[in-house]
Amino acid sequence: MKTENNPLGEYFNFAVASSLVLFGFDGEELSILLTKKTHEPFLGAYILPGKYIRPTEGNDAAIHQLLIEKIGVDPNSIYLEQLKAFSKVFRNPMGRVINVAYYALVKLTPEVKAHSEKFGGVWIPYNKIPDLAFDHNDIIVYAKERLKRRVKRRPVGFNLLPKEFTISQLQLIYEKALNRELDKRNFRKKIFNSNLIIESGNYTDPNLYRKISKLYMFDEEKYEKMTLKGYDFLF
Amino acid sequence: MKTENNPLGEYFNFAVASSLVLFGFDGEELSILLTKKTHEPFLGAYILPGKYIRPTEGNDAAIHQLLIEKIGVDPNSIYLEQLKAFSKVFRNPMGRVINVAYYALVKLTPEVKAHSEKFGGVWIPYNKIPDLAFDHNDIIVYAKERLKRRVKRRPVGFNLLPKEFTISQLQLIYEKALNRELDKRNFRKKIFNSNLIIESGNYTDPNLYRKISKLYMFDEEKYEKMTLKGYDFLF
Repeated sequence: MKTENNPLGEYFNFAVASSLVLFGFDGEELSILLTKKTHEPFLGAYILPGKYIRPTEGNDAAIHQLLIEKIGVDPNSIYLEQLKAFSKVFRNPMGRVINVAYYALVKLTPEVKAHSEKFGGVWIPYNKIPDLAFDHNDIIVYAKERLKRRVKRRPVGFNLLPKEFTISQLQLIYEKALNRELDKRNFRKKIFNSNLIIESGNYTDPNLYRKISKLYMFDEEKYEKMTLKGYDFLF
Repeated sequence: MKTENNPLGEYFNFAVASSLVLFGFDGEELSILLTKKTHEPFLGAYILPGKYIRPTEGNDAAIHQLLIEKIGVDPNSIYLEQLKAFSKVFRNPMGRVINVAYYALVKLTPEVKAHSEKFGGVWIPYNKIPDLAFDHNDIIVYAKERLKRRVKRRPVGFNLLPKEFTISQLQLIYEKALNRELDKRNFRKKIFNSNLIIESGNYTDPNLYRKISKLYMFDEEKYEKMTLKGYDFLF
């Protein structure tokens, strides 16, 4: 509020929210976590998970708390970064609300799925996102572009894949993120040339998959280096 | 404010500011525009140019207005993008203020220099930024990193160089942005291979420079394409 000690008081009339675009991969499908609004405005509409921030609360801290409580994921164990502030004047009918949006990548295990669904979360395939309340569709478009850039420059598969995975699963992530099919032979050549992955010595379970495939793991040391340095996958 | 119609009123207690990291190149030096605080807190301290946003005012619009009025630059003629929101809880002693920061690139002509200085601006060399108020040094560190990434991926020199320029001037921009010296022969090879520039047919003024050098221009059509597609200058 405007007081003698705070001539800027009239400016303190914004609210700040943070939303999260959480990409999850279950080995077959790349999905985004949505939830449904339980209050007006837009009661019942799909939105990104998120929350209004209290003036004493950090935005990063609020997203960390959301991940721990509502999704069951340790924020320090995943790839998480701020996207940018979405700040159009008329984005929220309650008043001027700035949304400092984030995105993150998780392995969509049965545990993460169950935990997030218990708190009202719904996992929707990446390419089947419905109309969302506010400007949340814009936020998702922006997050998809960011993910596309990231997979070209940094090895982010580690954050989405199980410890042991097939080359087909790895290719699937790139195809989903880049939104186009990739040539199988070319992809394999690039991945093996990058020296990022090593054979785990195991094979896919013949009871689960008709075709038996070699399982691979990321070479953690190489991966760390690549994550810091970046690379260039010119697909 | 919290009312019956607005149960979220208690959250509307933030202020929002936008600051601009403006990089200018005068042909020799890459500089950043600073200004001095004329009010408490931190009276007299250097800060980035910027302003508090009114709840009815867009952040992009506020930065556009700043560029036009205080710097004398048409925002639609330059490279301008949002960096991200800086949102630490204790970044401003007046209360909780989110800073939606931007960065932009301009040709630092005598006109831009004079206009910005008339409004209290001071151009400080890129590597000699003093201690700034608030978290503005953090914002500059982040902007420098963004610029470094951009020059590697997109042809941004167009936004900083005069219409006709020497290869040495172009190299200087890359060296400043990447903060290290580049091999002259290698740099020339890369630039000419990119097909981004063409000879203008003119030479540097022998009254100004002892050594007479060829002047180049950007091939606008190629440049447009590269700007959209990006490239990979693996320096």
